[in-house]
Amino acid sequence: MGMNLGDEVRVTLFGESHGVAVGALLEGLPAGTPIDELRLISDLERRRPGRRLLSSRAELDLCEILSGVHEGKATGAPILLLVRNQDAKPRDYAFLPDHPRPGHADLPESVRTGGHADPRGGGSHSGRLTLGLVAAGALVREILIARRVDVVAHCAGIGGIKARYSQESQDSEACKLLNCNDMNAADEMLTLVHSLRKDGDTIGSTVEARIEGLELGLGEPWFDGIEPALARGLMAIPGARAVEFGRGADVVNMRGSEHNDAWGDGPKPIGDDADGALGGMATGAPLRILVHFKPPSSISIPQMTLHLPSGEMRELTIGGRHDPVLAPRAAPVVEAVCSLIIADLMTIRESST
Amino acid sequence: MGMNLGDEVRVTLFGESHGVAVGALLEGLPAGTPIDELRLISDLERRRPGRRLLSSRAELDLCEILSGVHEGKATGAPILLLVRNQDAKPRDYAFLPDHPRPGHADLPESVRTGGHADPRGGGSHSGRLTLGLVAAGALVREILIARRVDVVAHCAGIGGIKARYSQESQDSEACKLLNCNDMNAADEMLTLVHSLRKDGDTIGSTVEARIEGLELGLGEPWFDGIEPALARGLMAIPGARAVEFGRGADVVNMRGSEHNDAWGDGPKPIGDDADGALGGMATGAPLRILVHFKPPSSISIPQMTLHLPSGEMRELTIGGRHDPVLAPRAAPVVEAVCSLIIADLMTIRESST
Amino acid sequence: MGMNLGDEVRVTLFGESHGVAVGALLEGLPAGTPIDELRLISDLERRRPGRRLLSSRAELDLCEILSGVHEGKATGAPILLLVRNQDAKPRDYAFLPDHPRPGHADLPESVRTGGHADPRGGGSHSGRLTLGLVAAGALVREILIARRVDVVAHCAGIGGIKARYSQESQDSEACKLLNCNDMNAADEMLTLVHSLRKDGDTIGSTVEARIEGLELGLGEPWFDGIEPALARGLMAIPGARAVEFGRGADVVNMRGSEHNDAWGDGPKPIGDDADGALGGMATGAPLRILVHFKPPSSISIPQMTLHLPSGEMRELTIGGRHDPVLAPRAAPVVEAVCSLIIADLMTIRESST
Amino acid sequence: MGMNLGDEVRVTLFGESHGVAVGALLEGLPAGTPIDELRLISDLERRRPGRRLLSSRAELDLCEILSGVHEGKATGAPILLLVRNQDAKPRDYAFLPDHPRPGHADLPESVRTGGHADPRGGGSHSGRLTLGLVAAGALVREILIARRVDVVAHCAGIGGIKARYSQESQDSEACKLLNCNDMNAADEMLTLVHSLRKDGDTIGSTVEARIEGLELGLGEPWFDGIEPALARGLMAIPGARAVEFGRGADVVNMRGSEHNDAWGDGPKPIGDDADGALGGMATGAPLRILVHFKPPSSISIPQMTLHLPSGEMRELTIGGRHDPVLAPRAAPVVEAVCSLIIADLMTIRESST
Repeated sequence: MGMNLGDEVRVTLFGESHGVAVGALLEGLPAGTPIDELRLISDLERRRPGRRLLSSRAELDLCEILSGVHEGKATGAPILLLVRNQDAKPRDYAFLPDHPRPGHADLPESVRTGGHADPRGGGSHSGRLTLGLVAAGALVREILIARRVDVVAHCAGIGGIKARYSQESQDSEACKLLNCNDMNAADEMLTLVHSLRKDGDTIGSTVEARIEGLELGLGEPWFDGIEPALARGLMAIPGARAVEFGRGADVVNMRGSEHNDAWGDGPKPIGDDADGALGGMATGAPLRILVHFKPPSSISIPQMTLHLPSGEMRELTIGGRHDPVLAPRAAPVVEAVCSLIIADLMTIRESST
Repeated sequence: MGMNLGDEVRVTLFGESHGVAVGALLEGLPAGTPIDELRLISDLERRRPGRRLLSSRAELDLCEILSGVHEGKATGAPILLLVRNQDAKPRDYAFLPDHPRPGHADLPESVRTGGHADPRGGGSHSGRLTLGLVAAGALVREILIARRVDVVAHCAGIGGIKARYSQESQDSEACKLLNCNDMNAADEMLTLVHSLRKDGDTIGSTVEARIEGLELGLGEPWFDGIEPALARGLMAIPGARAVEFGRGADVVNMRGSEHNDAWGDGPKPIGDDADGALGGMATGAPLRILVHFKPPSSISIPQMTLHLPSGEMRELTIGGRHDPVLAPRAAPVVEAVCSLIIADLMTIRESST
Repeated sequence: MGMNLGDEVRVTLFGESHGVAVGALLEGLPAGTPIDELRLISDLERRRPGRRLLSSRAELDLCEILSGVHEGKATGAPILLLVRNQDAKPRDYAFLPDHPRPGHADLPESVRTGGHADPRGGGSHSGRLTLGLVAAGALVREILIARRVDVVAHCAGIGGIKARYSQESQDSEACKLLNCNDMNAADEMLTLVHSLRKDGDTIGSTVEARIEGLELGLGEPWFDGIEPALARGLMAIPGARAVEFGRGADVVNMRGSEHNDAWGDGPKPIGDDADGALGGMATGAPLRILVHFKPPSSISIPQMTLHLPSGEMRELTIGGRHDPVLAPRAAPVVEAVCSLIIADLMTIRESST
Repeated sequence: MGMNLGDEVRVTLFGESHGVAVGALLEGLPAGTPIDELRLISDLERRRPGRRLLSSRAELDLCEILSGVHEGKATGAPILLLVRNQDAKPRDYAFLPDHPRPGHADLPESVRTGGHADPRGGGSHSGRLTLGLVAAGALVREILIARRVDVVAHCAGIGGIKARYSQESQDSEACKLLNCNDMNAADEMLTLVHSLRKDGDTIGSTVEARIEGLELGLGEPWFDGIEPALARGLMAIPGARAVEFGRGADVVNMRGSEHNDAWGDGPKPIGDDADGALGGMATGAPLRILVHFKPPSSISIPQMTLHLPSGEMRELTIGGRHDPVLAPRAAPVVEAVCSLIIADLMTIRESST
């Protein structure tokens, strides 16, 4: 039904952007998993709106854990993660559903639900629901840590500006604001975002993720393999338009003799950019992922678009509080989605006797 | 467990490349759906090995329908599609599992299954299992036709050579051989493939698919949306490394004012390259998809790679019968995967009362 | 993972008996379904503890609807139903997990979760979680009403006292207190329950349900058929030990010539007690169901039972607030489970083209 | 979609009674599980028709294993089990769908599928599809054996004759013919069945199953617990009308003080008839199950029943080859269903870290 991710470790999102609450129900976190509330808070903080330059919506995003935890550990029962909306402004969306926004899902969702969707700010399609992913992702992170798996994601590109991930901590304000681990690029990006904001326009962007420590053979065959599972989860993040694994689209110009990674000691494939997954299973090499996001659809420049009751093209000016670019706030979401999917694959039964 | 695709209309693959048989169990094809055996035969023919230049494995790929059909129509019960292997040569794989092939899933699969996988020709990970996808895809096509949905895919790139899809029938031998709908490009591609074959090397490639006729609002929210569902299915095709929707990775360089497609009459988004899907739901515009495939891993050039029992790097020369490039035979597989997923979304319950 | 029921219309339970909250996440309620808050309140009232003679736990069971509803109707997105516990007394369970109660799941659950379960009052295994089933059942009832399906359940037996369901409204206090639709039997039952309560003992009981208005052919084959689906859901109600459909266990003594129901006008099977389901599908006749419940395991009579740390048999006296018999409060739960399962079967795709 | 049982270890049935073939696709059998072909043959032999007194249909039921097995062991990939029908007589069913049989699913299935079902001998609803359950059950038995779990089922009642299970091997011909482990009862049953056969009538019956060796704590909470999962699977066997666990329906007359089983050494509940499952989890005591079957609906006595095209009641005389009683051939099916469900529960992820 669309709002569930995972099989053994499964998250179900609920809530609406301008309704009472948003959150997630997390099932299958193994009994005994420690609950790290500080990580929950800090992960939510990384995606929180209200930072300078990004959406000015003022949400504290205080997350209650209402079930499934006893004495600081998971009981194995479903964990309810709930955040009440505090700065909802449903009146900003009075033009809906009559005057659907270009590039938004307003109109398809209205048609799909026979007009019964909650249209305010995208309702349950809103990027605000990624909060539940980040909350659930924070809790499953313990499973990954216990198996020495690390997932990191950062903003790797905005418009024409590319950033290179650097392991050294990046303490500049621009880096923190943009979730970008390249100090020089972050400064440039900030200037670009400033100017876009002044224009009332938005820009496309890229998140890069890197998963390290996956054991050789982790995964499943075919449709539940690592890449298919990640591709599904990542393409569900609002605004995602393309996803690449390993050497990505560049493989088209490569020959087999150049692309094949020989097996070496470990065993593990040899080479810096060796494939981290083959046939849906981990090779032992790091897995590199790129997710490309479109420019946010909410621009403050007036747009001519169909007004449904009149059947005429009319000018629409969108108010509300929106992001000029997606990757900075999407980076922790990409991290969470990767964490949830890897945790799910790790808890699938051992397939040998 | 990995070998199932779909929810209401679901296909489960089975079989091994060099075992007794391959095929698919297709569940959920609505009772009364006409079974078009000619399409089944012609779709299988498009992906069949044994064509000049591609794999020389001689398989007739005769597909038996063993259940779920009565008087030429689906009964609603599971449909078993079975093809017996006729040209299996398991002896070609005597070097496995001791000397795993670079770029193949041999080693991860062996580790995953505690050494119990069938290693011959990739076993159940082999591209030969895409036969079941194509067979099942041929049967679900009736559902799409009944709702005036068209899915076409062709080989859109090999190495640096790009092809443009042309609706006019392309009768050249090169076009048929490569499942490419651009006569000039196909000739060039053929020359390139010839020369690679002589070198014993392989090359990367791209399949482009186009889905037309999807009704506004078709789809599901979040993880079961059109793009997430397609991304999962397409990334499971052996060798896929990246998938793009709509304007794909190019969105990174676009501004919102440029990328947003205004709604116009229909209602439908205006513009030739307007987004075919938003938030997991169809907009009414055609949906364009690119899938990028790596160069096939089986090259006949000798490769130095780990020999497990000795712990030494040793030279491995791979025999067997393999494809120099994936896109030509992957095109009908991409078509089948898209058809299966769209058919599944179409049979999901109506979500309004 | 155990706490989900249904496929298209799916309920997931969460919460703990003596934790912060209990409730349900209801997915798949079709967009546009009216939300009847009065039914929600009255259904919860029927299963509420704190009635005279039954458990003295004082819970108001005020249920918040936190998502998935807009302007009084379902949006199609997940609906979060939340009740905060107000009269939890976790100190009553200090003897756990060391001294597990006979007849309770305390010990198996502790072993299953490696000691990480919440043991207080049964934790997430508690009958208190049936509250989520009743809340979700109240909301799906609209789907049944729209298709003229009626589900009723009542307390049909306590110990040796049997009750016959009567359609006429039963206004006696005993009837209301026991959810029993037979005035004479209810009075007798009440006397029996009084005396058991004095003894500190409990007694077994039976709920009878009747589903009317199912259309001929509703259902699925085999494992998702009406009877298998209901049997699964009903056997999950805490304390259920047997379930019977149609003529139930009495069929063992019948001959085919006597048991077969001829088809008559409608078409519909002829006869007052004709089978309401055949092969997992509805026949058009009413479907009769019996669910037999064991005596509640919590008795106030001291019991000798294993004390785990010492390895000795020791006397255990259980405090807390418990029911002397299950059927009265289980009747609305049986109704809810039947409603949820029938609603799920009704929203499964039409299986013919 | 109805024809799948299980989650991690999953069987999907396919085929039709008088079509080309029947069988099962078994997914999730762990890689490395030994395949015991002799057990496969002997289990199929126990349910095979053509025995004296039971259905005279002559089927050899030779079962091919077409995938998922390599060098005598499961590879972890789906296992296709296929049996071609050899004695199908579809002409025996020319009266369908116009003159549906009383007590059969002919009419509901025809309505459900819009007239597109295969009506011959019940099509995919036929008891013949239990062959796939028995074949798959034979293969999963290895998982149970490895964990010292034993499942046995026998015919425990026909009409008024009850049988007691005896562990000593019962070599009488009546015992073998009826899958009944009580020599005296079996002789009596045989006489009764003889006389029914002469009358052209049928009779109700009971299968008793006993599962021993389940480890304390095995299971899942709520709807995927041992009893709910078994109840679902067992109620899907054609003709099942009631299922009882532990002390079954007798609990209604018991007091808690009498019914509660104290925990003793092991730990394990004390007492010969102690409950084998509590709250969906095993206690360590044997689990006793009764399944009650209706008399088979196919009787050779003429029956007056609705003739659809004319709208009149007309006499119907059923030919074909049928069983006078279900329990003897259902006993190995009950064993298989229990084995499949227990194997599934055993391979579900460990729920503690």
